[in-house]
This record gives sequence, structure tokens and C-alpha cells, in this order.
Amino acid sequence: MKSEIITIGDELLIGQIINTNQAYIAEQLNAIGVRVDRMTTVGDDMTAILEAFEAAWKHVDVVIVTGGLGPTHDDITKKAVCTFFDSDLAPNEEIKLHIQELLKRWNRQWSALSEEQTLFPQKAQLVPNPVGTAGGILFEEDGKFFYVLPGVPQEMKEMIDKSIVPFLATHVKNSVIRHLTLRTSGISESLLANQLGDLDELLQGAKLAFLPSPTGVRLRITVHGNDEIAVERLLSEVEQRIRAHVQKYIYGTNLEELEETIGNLLTSRKLTLAVSESCTGGLVADKITDVSGSSNYFQQGLVTYSNPSKVDVLGVPSLLIEQHGAVSKEVAEAMAAGIRRIAHTDIGLSTTGIAGPTGATSTKPLGLVWVGYSDAETTFATRYQFGGDRRRVKERAAQAALELLRRRLLKIE
Amino acid sequence: MKSEIITIGDELLIGQIINTNQAYIAEQLNAIGVRVDRMTTVGDDMTAILEAFEAAWKHVDVVIVTGGLGPTHDDITKKAVCTFFDSDLAPNEEIKLHIQELLKRWNRQWSALSEEQTLFPQKAQLVPNPVGTAGGILFEEDGKFFYVLPGVPQEMKEMIDKSIVPFLATHVKNSVIRHLTLRTSGISESLLANQLGDLDELLQGAKLAFLPSPTGVRLRITVHGNDEIAVERLLSEVEQRIRAHVQKYIYGTNLEELEETIGNLLTSRKLTLAVSESCTGGLVADKITDVSGSSNYFQQGLVTYSNPSKVDVLGVPSLLIEQHGAVSKEVAEAMAAGIRRIAHTDIGLSTTGIAGPTGATSTKPLGLVWVGYSDAETTFATRYQFGGDRRRVKERAAQAALELLRRRLLKIE
Repeated sequence: MKSEIITIGDELLIGQIINTNQAYIAEQLNAIGVRVDRMTTVGDDMTAILEAFEAAWKHVDVVIVTGGLGPTHDDITKKAVCTFFDSDLAPNEEIKLHIQELLKRWNRQWSALSEEQTLFPQKAQLVPNPVGTAGGILFEEDGKFFYVLPGVPQEMKEMIDKSIVPFLATHVKNSVIRHLTLRTSGISESLLANQLGDLDELLQGAKLAFLPSPTGVRLRITVHGNDEIAVERLLSEVEQRIRAHVQKYIYGTNLEELEETIGNLLTSRKLTLAVSESCTGGLVADKITDVSGSSNYFQQGLVTYSNPSKVDVLGVPSLLIEQHGAVSKEVAEAMAAGIRRIAHTDIGLSTTGIAGPTGATSTKPLGLVWVGYSDAETTFATRYQFGGDRRRVKERAAQAALELLRRRLLKIE
Repeated sequence: MKSEIITIGDELLIGQIINTNQAYIAEQLNAIGVRVDRMTTVGDDMTAILEAFEAAWKHVDVVIVTGGLGPTHDDITKKAVCTFFDSDLAPNEEIKLHIQELLKRWNRQWSALSEEQTLFPQKAQLVPNPVGTAGGILFEEDGKFFYVLPGVPQEMKEMIDKSIVPFLATHVKNSVIRHLTLRTSGISESLLANQLGDLDELLQGAKLAFLPSPTGVRLRITVHGNDEIAVERLLSEVEQRIRAHVQKYIYGTNLEELEETIGNLLTSRKLTLAVSESCTGGLVADKITDVSGSSNYFQQGLVTYSNPSKVDVLGVPSLLIEQHGAVSKEVAEAMAAGIRRIAHTDIGLSTTGIAGPTGATSTKPLGLVWVGYSDAETTFATRYQFGGDRRRVKERAAQAALELLRRRLLKIE
């Protein structure tokens, strides 16, 4: 079963808002085996809307349209869909009762705009909108489905989850799609590709996408087929083959973030952590504390942005800073050992580097970062060289610090 | 001048990532008077890509394609555009030198994938990619422009900002569009609308968009016309009228972030700052240190995530925590005063709150946050109640802390 998503609204074409509806709908459809072939966005313009309807309806089994169902002057989608399916608008009693109930709950008055919203295409079926006044529209023809939903994300989501997905799931036959995403850190897209070797042999018909981001490359495996058991078996086999090649770079699956992986590792080992940050400026602590329950293992973060604070608070010897500079292996190690000591934790982690755009010297280029690690057994620091602007260097350095901690905890070389 | 944006990638069609590139490109094109008529998204599929190219190239003057330019097997956009414009790929010396330089800077080796990236369509012009290895492609035919860019947002943005927008701006005739964005904090969309009064009178033909985000509402003024001087005069008049109504909420214009505003205020007043964070977990420090030169005024950040660290490091009396709880006016004030004392700064700022999803009590709901402030004259704390998930509460609390500091520095009530 193939589908297309059409989103309507001038606010999308001028870039005023980011289209989150598309991704939400696509994810829900894929989960039940309805493939999305194309997504189209047009403005509040009758010709453009009708052209988009025409192009989509010719090619796919399911069209989902969002936007332009509201009661104001620029909302013309309802008129467009009536034209397209040659249907007239008529007052709908079910919608009227629903709107009356909502207005009562919201303490609002019936208005001319409410009246306008009771009009519904005569040939269509109503898709209930539990949280809003605009009813969803379904035209069904020759086993194909054309949905029109409001663009308000909360209303659209309710209707997708409660009506459309359960209904379409019963119509999807012999088509199973499964995805699995493996999240890696500390290795580039091209090195990953190299290490995976011959992809045809690896994938045996599955698909693999490389999705790079500043904090790591995600590997998304997709298997498509008719038999659920066979599809899941192939997915699992491909996952195992990929892990056999690049296991040490994989920190999690699907939506799992590196800071969650680390949280689980620290919790299961009953270890506590403190961090002292220079170039990352609080971002490592910010990431760690994004995890609910992090207060169980994360004791303290320190942003020692000035040299005196490194000396006074962390006890980094000022001679060390004079001899090697604040961005050095020696200072990174002293910062990691220092924060571990003053926070009384099992592990201390530190960052010091040159995030830019100023501060570089002939021997210390922009993007140079040292990450320090200290525990009861050992203290060391690792050198990194990152590209990108100030924010990018901060993000990469923070991720590198967390990745260094993960590898250390798992004793990965 | 009309345009279409085509984004390519299976990851978009399965809803794994939200399409932010579209909105960014649309916003930049609109700013120079290039209207966006349609946005299309297709997967990594040759037929679908070529169909999308064909449909767009027939209708518009500018096509901008992103995605699928990387070196791995699923990146087929380069092949598609060569097919579409009947051009062969050949090694490009300029790209080769650029990749060599980047790899050297990143400390990486030349590989077969690098070799692959030096191949470029013979009939196309190169759009430089200062921050990545994939060169942008421009085909120009009969005064129309077909661009292909990488999908990595940072690379795409560099190329849009530095090459494409300046170039296209010289081709747009008799159409002047000017935008100005006023950034506000600490006031809701509907209160802003109330305070602005009659919009028709205020705008005199200009357009005003309310753009809410977790960290504040941006007001974007747009003026469209034929005469540059008249357009800029109206823009300036509307700006002054808006400021007359809501000046105290406006912290900056266009891309200026609140942390930059604060950096400028602290620098001009020669004041130093330290922060101690509980619920924001390092995010306030992270924001402050996103500003280049922040080391001149930002001395130290402290993330006291556990109660013992609040007592031991900040010197918050443990009795205060027992009596009022860690999330209280009293503890927020003691944290602000404490960090100011130990970091020897002019100002201390603090946050303590319940970011969730756990930790709420009958008297202290999720999203409750106290922001503390301390200087030589005064110490106080302000209460906030935020909605949203853990990350959202952190973001709102961090922004509220910076906004409280801004208003205090400017003596705004």
C-alpha cells in the first residue's frame, strides 16, 4: 500500500514554521506497512492544491492532506476537496453537536465561524476530531482513501492515532516493513562504509542508510517483505552482521542517546560521575542531566571557564598551565582528577579546547580539544581535532567526552 | 522569480527526521524576493527523483535540491542530476584540493570514498562547500538555475548563505522584500497581540508574523514593494511603533540570541558573572559560553545536581534545604549568593526546579522553577511555572534566568 502526504499552508512556503506533521504521519504510516512515496507542500492556492491532489491520487492508494481546514479566509482546503471529488457542502448535525460541546467546555460562544465549520462534504465520511472543531474528511473510492485533516499538530495526531492508523492497518495486506537504527559515535561515514565491506553480501536484500550528524552516524536498516517472520529474521541477521564489523562504535539503537547509554552503564555499575568543562562550557552536564534519574549518578558539574577558576576551584597547579597552556594533555588530566577529588565521585571527566573563532595559536589550531578521564586506577587524556564553528566544536567535544567514558566503562580500546 | 525546493532521502519518507532544510531554504529565498511555489520530498529512488526534477524544472525559475550527495551507495542524487542534464561525471581538481585540505585539517586519510567525491558533472558549475567534502552543483539554462546541495544542514546553510542567496539576489528585479525580526522574551503570543492593539493601524500595509518558540516569541515584520527607499522607511516606522508598545520585552533583532545581548551588557558595564544550576543542569552555562568572548565576563559555572553538592560546594545551609526543600525561594537565593561568593564575581545567578518527569509533590508541581539573583546590592528569587517535558522545562528555565538577568541589568521592572 503506497501513500503520499500533502501539507498545505503559506506559512510552510515562506519557511515560517518547520513541517513536523509530515514526519509524524510518515512514521505512523510506515509502522503499519503503508509506504510513503512522496511528500508535497503547497500554499493556500486553489490551482496548486488541485494539481497536488491530482498528481497524488493517480499514483498512490492513500492520500493524507493536512492544513487549511480552519474557518478563516485563507483556509480553502475544504472547498478544494469538494471540487476535486465533485461533492457539495451541507450542514452536518454530528459536527454541530461536537462543536457545541467543545465551545461549552472552553467557555466560548457560538459564532459565524462555528457555523462555517459545521459544513461538510456530502459524499464524504467524517473522521472525528476529539480535540478540535474542524472535522476530518475521508473520501473512499475503488479501495483507495483520501483523507483531509486539520494542520494543528495536536488535532492531526489524535486523528492519525485514533482513527486512521487503526483503520488502514486492517487494509494492509502482505506488506511488512521493519526498521532498525544503530547509532554510532566516534567514526566517520566513510570509515564505517569501509569497515562494513561488501554491502550486497551484508544486506541480502535489506536496505541500509548512512545518516550522518554532528554527534555521530546512524545506520538505518530497512527490510520490506510479505512475511513478518522472514522480515524480522532478515532484520536481525543484518543487525548481527553489522555488529560483527563495527560493534565497538555502536552505543544504542533507534532513539537512544549516548547520555542514556552512559546513564544505564553508570547505574548498573553503581558508579558516580562529575565533570569539569572548559571549552564545552556546560554542554556535557546539560546532556547528562537531560536523562531523567541522572541525579542518581551525576554529582556535580563545574564550568571552569577562566584559568584562575581552574587553579582555585579544581586545584590545577598554575605551573602546569604556564608550562603547557590551558589546552593541554596535562591540564585535561589535572581537571579530571581535580573534579573527581572535590566531588568525591568514582569518575571525573574533563574537557579543554579551542572552540573558536579566536584563541588559536600556531601549535594549537581551532577545534583542538583534550578530553580527560580519571578514576581510582588511572588518569589520562585523549586529543581530538574537530572542524566547524564554535557551536559545532562544542557539540562534537561533548559527544567525544561521553563516548570516551562509554568506551572506558566497556573496556573498549 | 519562482522556485521549488526538492528534498531527497528515505529517512524523510519514513519520518525518522524532521525536514528542517525546507524551512531554512524557503525563509532565505523569500527574504530576497524569490517565491517558493512548492516543496517536494522523495526517497533515494532514481525514478522518483527524476520525476520530481522534471515537474519542478517545467514550472519554476529556480530549483534547489538537497540530499543524497554523500559518498555512500544510497546517495544517488549526483547520478540523477547528470542523467537529467545529460552530463558526464569527471574528476574535478578544485574539489580534490579542497577535500585534501579538509582531510588534513581533520587528521583523516584519503580513501576510495574521497576519490568518489572528486567526481563532478562536467557541464555544471561548482558551488563551494567550505565546511564539507561534497561540492554543490549548479546547472544554469536559459536564465534558470538548478542547484544540488548536500543534505547536512550546516553545509547546506553555508552554501545558501554565502553563494546562492547573494547570487540569486542580483537576478531578482523590481521586487523588494525586507524583513526585520524583533525577538521577545517573557511574554506570551496573545499578551503581545493585546499590547500591540489595532494591527491594521500599526502595520499600514506591512505584514506581521507572530513566531512562538519555547524560548520566546519573535515578531517578524515583512514589507514588500517596488521602491527600496519606501520599503525601508515603512519597515523602520513599523519597528518604532511596535517598540513603543512592547519595548521592554524586546531583547534583540534578527538572529541575535539573548546570551549575546547579555554578553554585550556585561562587557559594556565591566561586570562578571557566575552561575549555579540545579534543574537546568548546565544549560545556562552552555548558552552563555556559546558567545565568543564570554570568557571575559563569565568566570565559573557550577552544576550542583545533588543536595550534598549544594551544601558542600556552594555553602547552602543544609537546614534551609530541610526546611524549604531544594526547590524553594530560599535555596535559589542561597545558591545565587553562594556562587557569587566562591567565584568572586559581581553577579551570581541560580536555578532550582522540577524538570520532571518525576520529583513533583502536591505543593511543588512539575515545571516549578525558582531563578535566583545576587549582586552587591540585593539578592532575590523569582518563581516560574513552565509546561512541557523535561527538555522543554530546562530550555524555558534557562531562558528565564537569562531574561531575569537582562531586565535586572537594564533596571526593567
